[in-house]
Amino acid sequence: MRPSKRAPDQLRAVTLETGVNRYAEGSCLIGFGHTKVLVTASIEESIPGWMRGKGQGWVTAEYGMLPRATHTRGRREAAAGKQTGRTQEIQRLIGRSLRAVVDLKALGERQITLDCDVVQADGGTRTAAITGAWVALRLATQYLLDEGVLKADPIIGQVAAVSCGVFNNVPVLDLDYEEDSNAEADSNFVLTEGGDIVEIQATGEKRGFTRAEFESLYGLAEKGIGELFAFQKAAVGK
Amino acid sequence: MRPSKRAPDQLRAVTLETGVNRYAEGSCLIGFGHTKVLVTASIEESIPGWMRGKGQGWVTAEYGMLPRATHTRGRREAAAGKQTGRTQEIQRLIGRSLRAVVDLKALGERQITLDCDVVQADGGTRTAAITGAWVALRLATQYLLDEGVLKADPIIGQVAAVSCGVFNNVPVLDLDYEEDSNAEADSNFVLTEGGDIVEIQATGEKRGFTRAEFESLYGLAEKGIGELFAFQKAAVGK
Amino acid sequence: MRPSKRAPDQLRAVTLETGVNRYAEGSCLIGFGHTKVLVTASIEESIPGWMRGKGQGWVTAEYGMLPRATHTRGRREAAAGKQTGRTQEIQRLIGRSLRAVVDLKALGERQITLDCDVVQADGGTRTAAITGAWVALRLATQYLLDEGVLKADPIIGQVAAVSCGVFNNVPVLDLDYEEDSNAEADSNFVLTEGGDIVEIQATGEKRGFTRAEFESLYGLAEKGIGELFAFQKAAVGK
Amino acid sequence: MRPSKRAPDQLRAVTLETGVNRYAEGSCLIGFGHTKVLVTASIEESIPGWMRGKGQGWVTAEYGMLPRATHTRGRREAAAGKQTGRTQEIQRLIGRSLRAVVDLKALGERQITLDCDVVQADGGTRTAAITGAWVALRLATQYLLDEGVLKADPIIGQVAAVSCGVFNNVPVLDLDYEEDSNAEADSNFVLTEGGDIVEIQATGEKRGFTRAEFESLYGLAEKGIGELFAFQKAAVGK
Amino acid sequence: MRPSKRAPDQLRAVTLETGVNRYAEGSCLIGFGHTKVLVTASIEESIPGWMRGKGQGWVTAEYGMLPRATHTRGRREAAAGKQTGRTQEIQRLIGRSLRAVVDLKALGERQITLDCDVVQADGGTRTAAITGAWVALRLATQYLLDEGVLKADPIIGQVAAVSCGVFNNVPVLDLDYEEDSNAEADSNFVLTEGGDIVEIQATGEKRGFTRAEFESLYGLAEKGIGELFAFQKAAVGK
Amino acid sequence: MRPSKRAPDQLRAVTLETGVNRYAEGSCLIGFGHTKVLVTASIEESIPGWMRGKGQGWVTAEYGMLPRATHTRGRREAAAGKQTGRTQEIQRLIGRSLRAVVDLKALGERQITLDCDVVQADGGTRTAAITGAWVALRLATQYLLDEGVLKADPIIGQVAAVSCGVFNNVPVLDLDYEEDSNAEADSNFVLTEGGDIVEIQATGEKRGFTRAEFESLYGLAEKGIGELFAFQKAAVGK
Repeated sequence: MRPSKRAPDQLRAVTLETGVNRYAEGSCLIGFGHTKVLVTASIEESIPGWMRGKGQGWVTAEYGMLPRATHTRGRREAAAGKQTGRTQEIQRLIGRSLRAVVDLKALGERQITLDCDVVQADGGTRTAAITGAWVALRLATQYLLDEGVLKADPIIGQVAAVSCGVFNNVPVLDLDYEEDSNAEADSNFVLTEGGDIVEIQATGEKRGFTRAEFESLYGLAEKGIGELFAFQKAAVGK
Repeated sequence: MRPSKRAPDQLRAVTLETGVNRYAEGSCLIGFGHTKVLVTASIEESIPGWMRGKGQGWVTAEYGMLPRATHTRGRREAAAGKQTGRTQEIQRLIGRSLRAVVDLKALGERQITLDCDVVQADGGTRTAAITGAWVALRLATQYLLDEGVLKADPIIGQVAAVSCGVFNNVPVLDLDYEEDSNAEADSNFVLTEGGDIVEIQATGEKRGFTRAEFESLYGLAEKGIGELFAFQKAAVGK
Repeated sequence: MRPSKRAPDQLRAVTLETGVNRYAEGSCLIGFGHTKVLVTASIEESIPGWMRGKGQGWVTAEYGMLPRATHTRGRREAAAGKQTGRTQEIQRLIGRSLRAVVDLKALGERQITLDCDVVQADGGTRTAAITGAWVALRLATQYLLDEGVLKADPIIGQVAAVSCGVFNNVPVLDLDYEEDSNAEADSNFVLTEGGDIVEIQATGEKRGFTRAEFESLYGLAEKGIGELFAFQKAAVGK
Repeated sequence: MRPSKRAPDQLRAVTLETGVNRYAEGSCLIGFGHTKVLVTASIEESIPGWMRGKGQGWVTAEYGMLPRATHTRGRREAAAGKQTGRTQEIQRLIGRSLRAVVDLKALGERQITLDCDVVQADGGTRTAAITGAWVALRLATQYLLDEGVLKADPIIGQVAAVSCGVFNNVPVLDLDYEEDSNAEADSNFVLTEGGDIVEIQATGEKRGFTRAEFESLYGLAEKGIGELFAFQKAAVGK
Repeated sequence: MRPSKRAPDQLRAVTLETGVNRYAEGSCLIGFGHTKVLVTASIEESIPGWMRGKGQGWVTAEYGMLPRATHTRGRREAAAGKQTGRTQEIQRLIGRSLRAVVDLKALGERQITLDCDVVQADGGTRTAAITGAWVALRLATQYLLDEGVLKADPIIGQVAAVSCGVFNNVPVLDLDYEEDSNAEADSNFVLTEGGDIVEIQATGEKRGFTRAEFESLYGLAEKGIGELFAFQKAAVGK
Repeated sequence: MRPSKRAPDQLRAVTLETGVNRYAEGSCLIGFGHTKVLVTASIEESIPGWMRGKGQGWVTAEYGMLPRATHTRGRREAAAGKQTGRTQEIQRLIGRSLRAVVDLKALGERQITLDCDVVQADGGTRTAAITGAWVALRLATQYLLDEGVLKADPIIGQVAAVSCGVFNNVPVLDLDYEEDSNAEADSNFVLTEGGDIVEIQATGEKRGFTRAEFESLYGLAEKGIGELFAFQKAAVGK
């Protein structure tokens, strides 16, 4: 039995509110249960130095967690003077995941930054961030199309993410914090709507886990991400 | 005429939603018009090393702005590796303002940290933060009283803050961003319900300003802060 | 009775020695009693990147305290690897105060940096720094005029600063360290010769303070700053 | 055809020299073709503060690359003043991988640090590091057993790692740099001798990749890691 | 001919004013010509963690240069966020030089920090700093003796320093900045009154230099340092 | 008697293996007994900003020590976030020493960086680094000559370094760690083949030392460095 009483293949309640920031070209507040991530997409008409002159754009992400997003207050990274390894790992993952569905040449020499700030954390913040970031990115590129800045759509696919794990020896979908801290194995799947793998990260936490268990997790992820694609589509109004 | 059509002595719409974070002992989302600040109060049963053994507690504040809180995206301080001088100046002000209405001995050897994160900025973020921080602090100390951890209330007064300025040569209350960037003079008043001064900061921006103008700003601040006290009281249910 | 036996409206002995650095375009050593601040004005024929192309110059300040300027040795900021929030707050204040009396267009595309290093601290270091910085700035711009680099004087006024506070319930002028650490209220006034406000910072330390007390402090500041203007004039030889 | 003429399921030449550092309790120089990683295991009779009092030890890893390990010189991280996100991500992975085969309680309150320094890089540095780190860790714990410090062996399994990828649409084992920079998909597998998954990281680089391709990579990894286990055993003399 | 018209074996004018800081246990302002260094000795009744429990004290030094100590303004190290390699090298040299004449056991478990801040630089700042630091240290230990804190004098000798160099192929004593920037060879000698070597640093700048030249520099140093010992003695009143 | 049974004027076994890095334009692994330093020379076709437009090149060095190069593990500088003062001092010394034998104009507008990474440390790491760096530099410039990039040889001399010290009151050559930690005096000599001084650093450790002792050390250094020149010549094949 899961602490939340959910069925093993059941997502938490997904909420997706768009237009939550009056300045950003795209924004949403995504909830996976009690996990809440505020995502903004910011368009800048310049790109990092190492990208210049290649006739293409860049999509990148930054991730942060408000100090009291968690049960006990964590240290503010800005005050500590650096981002933790965990933060950097997550923001690199978000950036890679989004770039997988963007035609950077079609984007032109501009950069879109996805800021993913966790307002409340109950497990699955990186998968919620990726799922919400696609929505914010979709809205921001739609803005560029609507304004006539872009003629062709640089978004070439849909991407979403979910975590799965082995909890009490049962493969389950979309771990919350209580499950995550006690899982035997933990994994994150980032898949495209076409079913392609963008990223898989699977880690044995308390013990290694078997290939059979891994295949079960993969199946759960395909089911859950399928449902997330529908939430994303509804949010962007298509 | 103010860009927002407000009367010179008119606050923006004030919104104050409490209980917005399920983990924090006190929390609120405060809005001064489009300015939105998320405040959490976190109780920690320990105090900084330099405070120990004095039989008293500490109240401190941290301030941050989400990168896209503003019209154009600002650099994330955690990525830059340090907090700006402006950030430090503001969080020091918030901390001093709150400590002015707390009996640190009555609080006991524990620390309350007010995290003030600006979700959207349209001028007046520091005054909104102070006003909201009092609410979060009030709720967190109420929690300690309700739990029986504290017998006596360490909150000895109410504090709120507002900005005033000279815009187009007219003294006006509660500047928004457009006014703030063009004001001849800018000031922040932090007052207690008893009418005492906790902090005044007044700066001539485009030109020095006269003592008469300053006195007008002071009067506007007293009026506006009086209204903020009522919003605070309503929010904490008294 | 003040610890120094001064009358409530009496400044400490003011000393102002110019030309104390053989390389700087302007320099002075200013003393407010035992507080001693060494100020140099350095002209650089370039301006920060964000200022370029606007046809105007910039005036900025940096502030530091030698480790043993104080009763007990403080940590060297260069060794600590960062400037404290207090340092940044003060140097921002000094910069703003000086820019209030400079016509940046008339200065041309060059920068003047005021380095204010506290050699000995006995309260009022920021107000002494501002008062001395005006002298160093005046000398440096005079140098530019004398050299024919500038045709018109970019200095459009005189600025000086003093602290006032409520000590033992009596409003007093120009707090020394002993008064400062025990004051009920503390304030810094930065005024122009024309009587305009450049900056007011007032803080209730032990208790909030009343508007009536604040008005008394304001009056003391006007008196004290008037005397400082005379010292400045004498120092720059006019 | 692979640039190195290898068969798709063929590892590069593996070299494993132990005892390369006269001070470390365990050490080896591992080569995967031209990739060379120097690994030392250092035992310290204390553990990080957050681990104390739990009656268990800790195994951690640090990773670095000498500036000229690569074709063009990279910036020295110590000079840059921080470790890159990539470095932190890799050293976290190495640490997790090793802890998966260590009984931390059996280790007692001591820490073993695996320093993995890349002397020459030609792809696969993190998998070579993990594979070599197990050898160094095995030697260091053997030292503790031989010295009688430990009675029971804290090593509960064998772990090794290899990369696989899709290169020119063909799944191949153990990518070198040329393949890695041009692969359609890249993955790292960390498996135990029992066949359990410790960690899988799979990333679509140029395009997403299919579940069928992923399964092929998995099969290649199982074959390659099986061979690496034999090299490890030979190196530790069992 | 030296730019300053000095004879090859002639020091610049040496000035040594003591008691220049009212808080420090020992202080002086030392001048070697236009080079001016403010030195304070601060006694702290605690020692660094790694020194504790050994029943002995520590003497250390910190060195800094005010931004406009030089012809053109240099960057403030506190603002840059770190001390340069040159600064660290110099402060390590000063600390070693002073410790050479202190019986750390006799000092007891306390630390004396010599802060050497260059107010004006015209070559030879490190040698002036060492020479002045001995004076400040002597005064601070005298204070401990006078107060009865120490019964026995921990100062076991006198130390001073001077630079020498080969300028226009002539060995000269006590280089000023103009000579220093054009010297073929540059050296710093730190000697005790007994004639022992505490430290020699000799560097060929434009060309290597011969052993014969080196011996000449050594002779000049012995002469110059002999004169500095007399200045030190006069300053400490013996 | 030396701990290593060596005669007072006897070097440790010197090993010098070239071509140890397949990417670097020059490389060697140099051993002074158990001290092992890996040196690479990297040519970059650009120079630091402050050097540009002078029609000359630059030679610089960076130095690092692997964490377990020493008896007990030291902190990784990249993880600590900064290089120690010792590291900076050493890398500045290496750079100066090499530049003493390079005609920077003949090198053209390119930079050669010598990375000296200590793999194992048993005293004398800086002198081994200098001696090895000359070999790597010689090979890298030979590469430029062989490729026809340079017409004239920018290397104008040979440079090597050795440490000497007073151990048990006997002057000895090439200190190992055990001697170094107990020496009364320690020195490093960097000399050219022509016998010129590039750098001398001599420090009294436990006591000051006499000029006569210093002269003995100098003689030992001349003998030892003479032998090192032969090892260097053999290594570069001349």
